[in-house]
Amino acid sequence: MSRNWIVSTALPVHYQVRMVDGLLDPDNRALLEAGATRRSDTIRRLIVIDAAVDRLYGVQLRHYLQHHGVKYQILALPISETLKTMDAVFTVVEAINAFGLSRRHEPIIAIGGGVLMDIVGLAASLYRRSTPYVRVPTTLIGLVDAGVGAKTGVNHAAHKNRLGTYFPAKDTLLDRGFLRTLDTRHLVNGLAEILKIALIKDRTLFELLERHGTTLIDERLQGTTPESDEAATQVIERAITGMIEELEFNLWEHKLERVVDYGHTFSPTVEMLALPELLHGEAVNIDMALTTLLSVQRGLISVEERDRIFALMRKLELPVYHRLCEPAVLEEALADTVRHRDGLQRLPLAMGIGSACFVNDVQPSELRAALATLKEMDGGSESLREAAHA
Amino acid sequence: MSRNWIVSTALPVHYQVRMVDGLLDPDNRALLEAGATRRSDTIRRLIVIDAAVDRLYGVQLRHYLQHHGVKYQILALPISETLKTMDAVFTVVEAINAFGLSRRHEPIIAIGGGVLMDIVGLAASLYRRSTPYVRVPTTLIGLVDAGVGAKTGVNHAAHKNRLGTYFPAKDTLLDRGFLRTLDTRHLVNGLAEILKIALIKDRTLFELLERHGTTLIDERLQGTTPESDEAATQVIERAITGMIEELEFNLWEHKLERVVDYGHTFSPTVEMLALPELLHGEAVNIDMALTTLLSVQRGLISVEERDRIFALMRKLELPVYHRLCEPAVLEEALADTVRHRDGLQRLPLAMGIGSACFVNDVQPSELRAALATLKEMDGGSESLREAAHA
Ligand SMILES: NC(=O)c1ccc[n+]([C@@H]2O[C@H](COP(=O)([O-])OP(=O)(O)OC[C@H]3O[C@@H](n4cnc5c(N)ncnc54)[C@H](O)[C@@H]3O)[C@@H](O)[C@H]2O)c1
Ligand SMILES: NC(=O)c1ccc[n+]([C@@H]2O[C@H](COP(=O)([O-])OP(=O)(O)OC[C@H]3O[C@@H](n4cnc5c(N)ncnc54)[C@H](O)[C@@H]3O)[C@@H](O)[C@H]2O)c1
Repeated sequence: MSRNWIVSTALPVHYQVRMVDGLLDPDNRALLEAGATRRSDTIRRLIVIDAAVDRLYGVQLRHYLQHHGVKYQILALPISETLKTMDAVFTVVEAINAFGLSRRHEPIIAIGGGVLMDIVGLAASLYRRSTPYVRVPTTLIGLVDAGVGAKTGVNHAAHKNRLGTYFPAKDTLLDRGFLRTLDTRHLVNGLAEILKIALIKDRTLFELLERHGTTLIDERLQGTTPESDEAATQVIERAITGMIEELEFNLWEHKLERVVDYGHTFSPTVEMLALPELLHGEAVNIDMALTTLLSVQRGLISVEERDRIFALMRKLELPVYHRLCEPAVLEEALADTVRHRDGLQRLPLAMGIGSACFVNDVQPSELRAALATLKEMDGGSESLREAAHA
Repeated sequence: MSRNWIVSTALPVHYQVRMVDGLLDPDNRALLEAGATRRSDTIRRLIVIDAAVDRLYGVQLRHYLQHHGVKYQILALPISETLKTMDAVFTVVEAINAFGLSRRHEPIIAIGGGVLMDIVGLAASLYRRSTPYVRVPTTLIGLVDAGVGAKTGVNHAAHKNRLGTYFPAKDTLLDRGFLRTLDTRHLVNGLAEILKIALIKDRTLFELLERHGTTLIDERLQGTTPESDEAATQVIERAITGMIEELEFNLWEHKLERVVDYGHTFSPTVEMLALPELLHGEAVNIDMALTTLLSVQRGLISVEERDRIFALMRKLELPVYHRLCEPAVLEEALADTVRHRDGLQRLPLAMGIGSACFVNDVQPSELRAALATLKEMDGGSESLREAAHA
């Protein structure tokens, strides 16, 4: 016997990400209609929401749903990076079972930051091997990153996002109004991902951040003047457009050279080790600070550009160093990333401001040198900050 | 703001299923090369194997691996339908972590029946959001069904395959030699899935089973004469070809009318309730017996054809009834299936022998009538069997 069967097919994937103002305004039907494939008389929805977001917007949300006669269940999940585990996925699965969800035209609605969306996305992906869902990001990371791509996931056995799938929401509704209540630290955390896009592919975005960074933070991107409103819009739209350009042709990450992996080489390990001390974007920024210095050592970034980058990082109040960044940790982090990237470093490095290249030959000695400079520069900023506060 | 982004792309999926004789014969390089995208000097492999299969073939497997200088780890998993849970997936994930698997060119090898392959497939699918694997089915269900499609999954909260993904192995190697050691009950269990294909789309396959059924069981499809060898080959190849024809254009089951769902409307619930009493194929056969009677009631199958079908089921030693089949259970099973099939029954019914149609309007009264007849017919076969043994 030597029969052979070859199965050849393709899974079409289409999804939509769109800006919506006043999402919970009863006049706005976007949330009601999102992800639904057909109209029906009684609308039933299971909503999974970050418990903290529920405390802030729960009354408005229930009012909205009642106004439209929706039969709903709301599961408010306590959220933190340490609770981003399969147990949280199981809690969502239980709620889906209890709701008796009808697949395909009763999309699950996920409202929250990256943690909540990653958990609900994985639950939806696994439930009966795929159940549609809708994303409503409420953090800046959510708006420009976690809500835009296809990845779901949870941490497992001390490894960041070790278990997950590629399963985008059919519909993602972006309302930057949610940022009003987000604390500064998490806002800034999102700016780190925007800075990433700026550094690797969008010099104009970098300049926008330089010019408006402080205002954007102070106003939580709500735009209280025409100028700052325009800046906030530009920054969010450019970040999303940049992200989607990189995602669309590589949604399943078959191509392992990904510029959007910039800042994500050392940070997964550092973030998990430092838990819950460092936020995702903070860890990413430390990685970007370190790799900026690697770029300088290789002549890819000038000292002037380096100083501009570090100045912007400081303006955005992002950390550039963490005491866990020791050579052994960084080397182990790189080794784990190499495993993830199929045996090669494929390390994106910024080239100047606004473009990137890939390298495969970073040596431990280079890492140590960059780290030494980083400690110095961080010491410098520490004393600067102390001076400013004196 | 009213910006819209639409992401449109497709995931290409290609995989191979092939017949291989003497898979563990050191001269056969198939297992060594399966799923690997590039040659390398040292071959490393993580193998997850059903512990029962390991007891039977472990010595031969280790000899094979050592002969080829493979650096390997073997995880022998205890297997049963009740152990088909996320905990088993976590055990596999731990082994992958410990092995330090390099993605993409160190495929995980899964050796075992449907339970083992479904667990390893899900672990591989989730690990770093997808890690290639190779399937080596060792049961008949594995050879003609679980090893051929794209589905992975585990049971959860008393629901059959409630969590899972679509993630086919790059390579599946079919060696019917493994069936030599399979007990009769599990062999027959696989014949139920082959009978399913016969009933819904392949009358010739039905006739092959009628003619050679007893020999195929006695010889465990090993073919000890040229005639029985040809019959075994034909039966396996026709079953797989039929299955792949139905799968290829509908790998993600977007089309909910699936003839291969025949026998899978009531059986998931009955199988889970009866655990561990009924095997998958046995539950499927009971479902097919019941729905054969529904077909008769609707004039889709003649009484003569019904008798031929029941006679073949008896010849293949397959159960046609279980005491848990009570009207309430069947109605709840149908309701759950309706949820799974997006609000409609989409119930495949055999039309004569070798073709099928779909219905959406099966009534509780029809179910009760079919069930009453089924009990009678089962009683009849009981007394027949008793008579034979007297
Ligand atoms: N799937 C992806 O493609 C992707 C991309 C980037 C990041 N991520 C993941 O996202 C996570 C980080 O996301 P995050 O930064 O949104 O964190 P998060 O989800 O933990 O939210 C941050 C904090 O803000 C609170 N919060 C959320 N919305 C609020 C609001 N409107 N007002 C007040 N408080 C609010 C949350 O309760 C939480 O305490 C990480 O786990 C990361 O791995 C995923
Ligand atoms: N993914 C799919 O598309 C798909 C299709 C059909 C069935 N399934 C799943 O497969 C499972 C049933 O598969 P199965 O029937 O292979 O059951 P199984 O995996 O439980 O194997 C049956 C028994 O045979 C033993 N065994 C396996 N190979 C042997 C060999 N060569 N010699 C002796 N003993 C051997 C096993 O240890 C087990 O006790 C169900 O959980 C079902 O949901 C999945």
